[in-house]
Amino acid sequence: MSDGTASNREPANTREAIMYATYDALHEHGYAGLSISRIADEGDLSKSTFYHHFDDKEDLLLSFADFTIAQFGRGFEVESTGDPVEDLYAFLNFALGTHPIARDRPDSVERMGVWIELRSQAIHDPAFAEKFTETTEKYVENLTDIIAAGIEQGVFEDVEAEKTARFLLTTVDGAILELTTRTDDTRPVVWEKMDEYIRTHIVRDELDVDEYAFDDNFESADDAA
Amino acid sequence: MSDGTASNREPANTREAIMYATYDALHEHGYAGLSISRIADEGDLSKSTFYHHFDDKEDLLLSFADFTIAQFGRGFEVESTGDPVEDLYAFLNFALGTHPIARDRPDSVERMGVWIELRSQAIHDPAFAEKFTETTEKYVENLTDIIAAGIEQGVFEDVEAEKTARFLLTTVDGAILELTTRTDDTRPVVWEKMDEYIRTHIVRDELDVDEYAFDDNFESADDAA
Repeated sequence: MSDGTASNREPANTREAIMYATYDALHEHGYAGLSISRIADEGDLSKSTFYHHFDDKEDLLLSFADFTIAQFGRGFEVESTGDPVEDLYAFLNFALGTHPIARDRPDSVERMGVWIELRSQAIHDPAFAEKFTETTEKYVENLTDIIAAGIEQGVFEDVEAEKTARFLLTTVDGAILELTTRTDDTRPVVWEKMDEYIRTHIVRDELDVDEYAFDDNFESADDAA
Repeated sequence: MSDGTASNREPANTREAIMYATYDALHEHGYAGLSISRIADEGDLSKSTFYHHFDDKEDLLLSFADFTIAQFGRGFEVESTGDPVEDLYAFLNFALGTHPIARDRPDSVERMGVWIELRSQAIHDPAFAEKFTETTEKYVENLTDIIAAGIEQGVFEDVEAEKTARFLLTTVDGAILELTTRTDDTRPVVWEKMDEYIRTHIVRDELDVDEYAFDDNFESADDAA
């Protein structure tokens, strides 16, 4: 059982209860060890309840991917402050799980593990590959919009907005893969270099970005890991 | 059965035959669908042969991780040319599977899929996490050595060698995750921006790196995907 996630949630209906139980079973046993029985155990649900809502395990897991993507996506829905520099830093720190709001969640790293676990199903399952392509494209669009707004307002250099967004998000993807599959947290160094890239390549020289840079953003993340 | 890999190999002994059969079964069925029976089927081997060599599936898969890491690692053993610029480009293109030698292998993307599949086991299995931490640290060391040699020889700017190596390899990790879990190949854009980063941050301004930049490095990679 995952203590971190159980605390903040109260399922609205049986379907949602199944989603939470799937999360717990996946976190506990991994994808390879996942079974309807184990999910039922986690959620104190009967197996017949599952088959009332889902055709089979594949059907359940595709729905669970949607559920996870929607939950994860909330972290990327940064309401624009009107300041592209602030938006850029907020977006990337949400993505890396180092934003002050994200790091207050003790299950931040655990949720990224479930994300990678689901995403790796795309290696063999085209339905998952399509889902994750569509989802990650949406993140690219969101970040492209922030960068384009900065260029428009004259606070960013005239960079290629979409390509720059893709480069940054690929680095974020790598950081999440490393965070969930290594024994240490590589994000402090990655963030330091990414911050340097933002200051030298994206933000105009004369701007001071220190107030947005979350210099202390890894202290709490380390505690949570 | 994976046609791409079967062609180039002739197992030296039963243990190696089991490794190739595991590769095929993993590529075909994914980690979640992996069983000793399926591996035996792929390799025309009896189940008793397995238990002669391995205690159980976990034992087999940890050995398979070593085998895969060793095979993958060969791609990173770029013999130094004495020119750090050439070494840097060769190393990164090997890592991304876009080096002329790597892209002649039709199974380059498939092998990266098996790599991510194995690596994602580290989310739940500390033995895998330790193995992949140790392995990826070795890549960091190799790339750090190349960057340090470039600084030493005065062809690179005085960057922080190890941190720069980590940043580049995290981006490579993200590119491999995306390549294996999306329906498209994001490497051309990532490479374009990484190349720009190398030219503006690492290599000294006056040097012309065009001859090492593998401008055509994605044509064959696309064909292979």
